[in-house]
Amino acid sequence: VSTNEFDLIERIRRRATTTREDVLLGIGDDAALLEVPAGHALVVATDTLNAGVHFPVETPPADIGWKALAVNLSDLAAMGATPAWCTLSLSLPDADAEWIDAFLEGFMRLAVLHDVALVGGDTTRGPLSISATVHGFVDPARALRRAAAREGDLVWVSGTLGDAAAALEQWRAGALIDPGLRERLDRPTPRVALGRALGGIARACIDVSDGLLADLAHVCAASGVSAQIDVDALPASDVLCAEFGGDARRHLQSAGGDDYELCFTAPAAAREAVETAARNADVYITAIGRIVPRTAGPVMARDAHGAEWMPGTTGWRHFA
Amino acid sequence: VSTNEFDLIERIRRRATTTREDVLLGIGDDAALLEVPAGHALVVATDTLNAGVHFPVETPPADIGWKALAVNLSDLAAMGATPAWCTLSLSLPDADAEWIDAFLEGFMRLAVLHDVALVGGDTTRGPLSISATVHGFVDPARALRRAAAREGDLVWVSGTLGDAAAALEQWRAGALIDPGLRERLDRPTPRVALGRALGGIARACIDVSDGLLADLAHVCAASGVSAQIDVDALPASDVLCAEFGGDARRHLQSAGGDDYELCFTAPAAAREAVETAARNADVYITAIGRIVPRTAGPVMARDAHGAEWMPGTTGWRHFA
Repeated sequence: VSTNEFDLIERIRRRATTTREDVLLGIGDDAALLEVPAGHALVVATDTLNAGVHFPVETPPADIGWKALAVNLSDLAAMGATPAWCTLSLSLPDADAEWIDAFLEGFMRLAVLHDVALVGGDTTRGPLSISATVHGFVDPARALRRAAAREGDLVWVSGTLGDAAAALEQWRAGALIDPGLRERLDRPTPRVALGRALGGIARACIDVSDGLLADLAHVCAASGVSAQIDVDALPASDVLCAEFGGDARRHLQSAGGDDYELCFTAPAAAREAVETAARNADVYITAIGRIVPRTAGPVMARDAHGAEWMPGTTGWRHFA
Repeated sequence: VSTNEFDLIERIRRRATTTREDVLLGIGDDAALLEVPAGHALVVATDTLNAGVHFPVETPPADIGWKALAVNLSDLAAMGATPAWCTLSLSLPDADAEWIDAFLEGFMRLAVLHDVALVGGDTTRGPLSISATVHGFVDPARALRRAAAREGDLVWVSGTLGDAAAALEQWRAGALIDPGLRERLDRPTPRVALGRALGGIARACIDVSDGLLADLAHVCAASGVSAQIDVDALPASDVLCAEFGGDARRHLQSAGGDDYELCFTAPAAAREAVETAARNADVYITAIGRIVPRTAGPVMARDAHGAEWMPGTTGWRHFA
């Protein structure tokens, strides 16, 4: 079903109704007009997904829609921010109304869950690519910044690690993809409630998109510290354990990307407050290590026997 | 010169220094933290440029950079907003440092002109595509909205029309492209000062990206009115007149896209205030018609002899 650009925009606009009163003007003008609440900073993140790079080309459009928003909400979560609005730039090889409807189904499902209004964007012809920009608010004094980790902090991670990378590995190998792993790859859960609950309690935070060690290294570099991680303490899902063992599993957990869990640090004395925040956000968290004074390597990973763990790569680099 | 994603981001970060005090946190965290001034609405616009669709593939990277920001600033101008920050999503076939440097040269040159801080974004592998999101402020009572045109308003347009489309036509024909026309296609001037000066004076406003008649039709549809336009009153540059005449020129002026001039309406009684605003913004403007009660067609265009003018197309549709 081919259609033209204006019809596509009209299709999107019909799906983008919102009850948010801070949207003074949404889709349909040259720009959106929005109201940021007093005393809060505006938080802005942008992420792009390209077919064949960030998702297999055969990914169902509804899953692509979900993920395009999820990876962006995950960035807001890592700041401790409350999401509010998003814009969407869609490049499509052709104006396929059925594809758009399915895509929007996934995108808007997640948007509604987080009360995010779609307030603008554009549709253009080109190779399949989705770029979303999300906006939220945070009290700047409670924002979780990469540069805030301090010596003695415990390092925590939410949920489980390695599931998304495991699905990708099965897909690359041409194997049957476990449905549980695939769900984690295609429909990641942005940890918005956890990020918000950690504001004022945790120090540094980042979302795990490139792989735990690579992302934690960003935190360490920004904070001028190093981290010691117990590789055998990294949380693994039952389904990951059923499909992968030993070093293959450790590698997926420590270096696999696309998990969109939060990795954060907090003073050791805040352990109880951190655990309460996680319980209130209904997210399982695990202490995986500790922040130490800066050493040669930003992140030292050891297994339960104290042996140093060197993963094959340091995470997912699009241009590596 | 190939490099990796993190080096690219570092290259961009080095170019993106800003003295804006409302940037609490720029490139380098999960999201940017920004301060919107009290009493102002946030204004957000997104636009994407794809190689081969929005610019010829042989366009110099510095021009692509300039244009990627210009088309977005033009949307803010059409709201009467003051630009402040932008994010940039770059999809590149390979991580070419020279290309990035040239691209940034054009992008940042325009950004500095308008004191716009580059506060975030991402770089990914994929077919060449640039998506920028710009943010600005406006007093909501002074914002220029598409739905605000009223019967009796004069219709105005800034600058000259048809130059960019003329350059594209010469390029498509394989002809030598006139350098003056090419400059207008590759380095459009967003009418930011004019848009701001028109706040509180003009009523409806839109930027001419799809072609005058098509864009004015959006204003009319949103406002529930129609417009009568004198095709022979449309402003033309000397260089356009030198290269194109008669109906070919009329067609470029009325239906050619990519001009990024402002088309706006204002009460006839505000003529003097409009002209003063334009003079203060140092932009030439022309009255080209009038808003009338809604009729069957949104825009009726007539030539100087009163004959109805029907252009071959109603503007640039990416999916047409």
